[in-house]
This record gives sequence, structure tokens and C-alpha cells, in this order.
Amino acid sequence: MEMQHKEEEMMVANGGSRLRRMDAATRFLALALTLAAAVVLGVNKQTTTILVKINPSIPPVDMRITAKWIQMSAFVYFVIINAIACSYTTISLMFTLATRGRKKNVSVMVTVLDLVMVALLFSAIGASGAVGLIGYTGNSHVQWREVCNVFDKFCHQAAVAMGLSFIGSMAYLLLVIFGIYKKL
Amino acid sequence: MEMQHKEEEMMVANGGSRLRRMDAATRFLALALTLAAAVVLGVNKQTTTILVKINPSIPPVDMRITAKWIQMSAFVYFVIINAIACSYTTISLMFTLATRGRKKNVSVMVTVLDLVMVALLFSAIGASGAVGLIGYTGNSHVQWREVCNVFDKFCHQAAVAMGLSFIGSMAYLLLVIFGIYKKL
Repeated sequence: MEMQHKEEEMMVANGGSRLRRMDAATRFLALALTLAAAVVLGVNKQTTTILVKINPSIPPVDMRITAKWIQMSAFVYFVIINAIACSYTTISLMFTLATRGRKKNVSVMVTVLDLVMVALLFSAIGASGAVGLIGYTGNSHVQWREVCNVFDKFCHQAAVAMGLSFIGSMAYLLLVIFGIYKKL
Repeated sequence: MEMQHKEEEMMVANGGSRLRRMDAATRFLALALTLAAAVVLGVNKQTTTILVKINPSIPPVDMRITAKWIQMSAFVYFVIINAIACSYTTISLMFTLATRGRKKNVSVMVTVLDLVMVALLFSAIGASGAVGLIGYTGNSHVQWREVCNVFDKFCHQAAVAMGLSFIGSMAYLLLVIFGIYKKL
């Protein structure tokens, strides 16, 4: 009877340690992806030359224009949130590795903060995705013209950043699910 | 010793039943708020008359223009996600009331689905918020002009819908936190 009890305890301990390893690996992935997303959009810049007709009587002139992430509030929000998520993950990774899931309160607090990161990251992806979509297709109803035909490289790089952040957010979603299952 | 054990069990049971009542109340609030958000934006429509100069040689003419939620992808996404969240909450509310938290697997599944709702709702709020902000302020870098000076009522109603949905999302966030604490 006692043997069986000990075996069960060992199985639970093994399951817990496997979950902890998975948690640490996923956390590291989330860190890397949100860092990459913030950097990819943060360094995003494209300068291009367009022909502008100032007056119908004179020929059009060349004009150099630059697209930067800082020119659009949604992209600024995206970079800030990914930077926050990345910084938080570094701290939470150290915490979870140091406590090894022994402190239940710390573990619950980390899961709640992971949840906050899910909310923030998804809102940032939604914001930049909506603006990016208008950049690609434009919107004739409000006469917002597409800009990705001019800033193709910029738009492509922004899409890559959003993709990276999306996978990072899925990693956070997984971390919260681990947190829920950990308490089972 | 046995008395003390029974008292502890009763305290845990009381705590669990209080948490279940809070869960049901919050779930009902989330249902009402996401339903209201979907309806408030879904019925949003404003028709206004603007002066348009077609040709410099003739005087400007009146033109009637209409703003609807369906004209903007971010608003369509917002209405769909809020409708999904509201429908899901109705089902999950029935499930949680029927099982009374007795079935652990159902309870965990509901918490994971609540988490998915958090992600979806925050992405929808982010998307419509980003578009709404450009509607209010415009963006000179991409020459997207503000439209809320013309469609003031439409923009105001969209902001109300976003506010309702945001409080609804916070209710979902709370539901996931309850789900995490329930397992403690």
C-alpha cells in the first residue's frame, strides 16, 4: 500500500518536473519571439522616391519620403508591448527557474501575469494588424489609400514582426494553459 | 481532530461555492457586455451631407454619405468576435451552472476557452481601437484624414461599443483568474 502511494507520488513529481521543463522552454521561446518582433519592427525604415505633381503647369518632381514605425501609433504600441513582454519573460524565467515551482503563490502570480501578457500582446497584434491591412488594401469609404504599393519592404517587414509576435503570443497562451493544468 | 478536519472541509466547500457564485455573476456580466458591444456597433450607422467640389468652374454640390460598421474590416471583426464571445458565454454559463464545478475536466476546458475569448476580444478591441484612433486624429504620414469630424455620432457610438467590450474582456480576464485560483 505504502509502495503504491510512493509510486503515485513519484509519477506526480515526474509529471510536474516535465511540465516545468516545458514551461521553461516555452517561456524562452516567448522571450526570443517577442524580442525579435520588437527589434524587427523597431528597426523598420524605408526611404523611397515618388513623383509628385505640385502644379499642373510644371512637370512632376521627385520627392523622397520615409516610412518609420514611429509614425503610426499602432506600431509604437506594438513595439512597446513586445518589449514589455520580453522584459517580463526574462524576469519570470529567472523566477520560475529559481523557485522550481515550489512556491505556489509565485507560480500563481506568474500565471496571472502571463495572462496579462496574452491580453496585451493580442491587443497589440490586433492594432497593428488592422492598420497593416488598411496599408495593404486601403479603404475607399474613408478614402484612406493603400501605402504598401510604395513602402513594400516596410510592409513586408512589419508583417514578419506581426507573425513573430503572434507565435510568441501563442506561447504565452500555452504558458497560461500550463499554469491551469499545473494546479490539477 | 476529526471535528477540525470537518471544519476545514466545510470552509473549503464554502470558499468554493462563493467562487462559483462569483464566477456565474461575472460570466453573466461578460455575456451582457459583449452582447451590448456587438449590438451597439452592429446597429451603428450615420448618414450626413457634405459639400463636394467636383469642378472648380461650378459651385460645390451636396452629397449624402453613410458610415456603417460593415465598411471597415476591423469593425466587422469586432462585431463577429463579440457575438462569438457572447454565444460561447451563454453555453458556458449553462454548463457551469449545470455541473456546479463538480466535473474538473469541464471546469478546466471552460477556463481554457475563457482564455481563448480573452485573446480574441483583446485583439478585436486593439484592431477597432487602432482604426478608431486614426478616424479621430488622422495620420499625416500616410495621408489618412480624420473622419470623426464628419461622422461624429458614428465615432462616438463605436467608442461606446469598444468601452463595453473592454469591460467585458476584463470580466473574461477575471474568469480565467478564478479558474486558476479554483485549482489552488
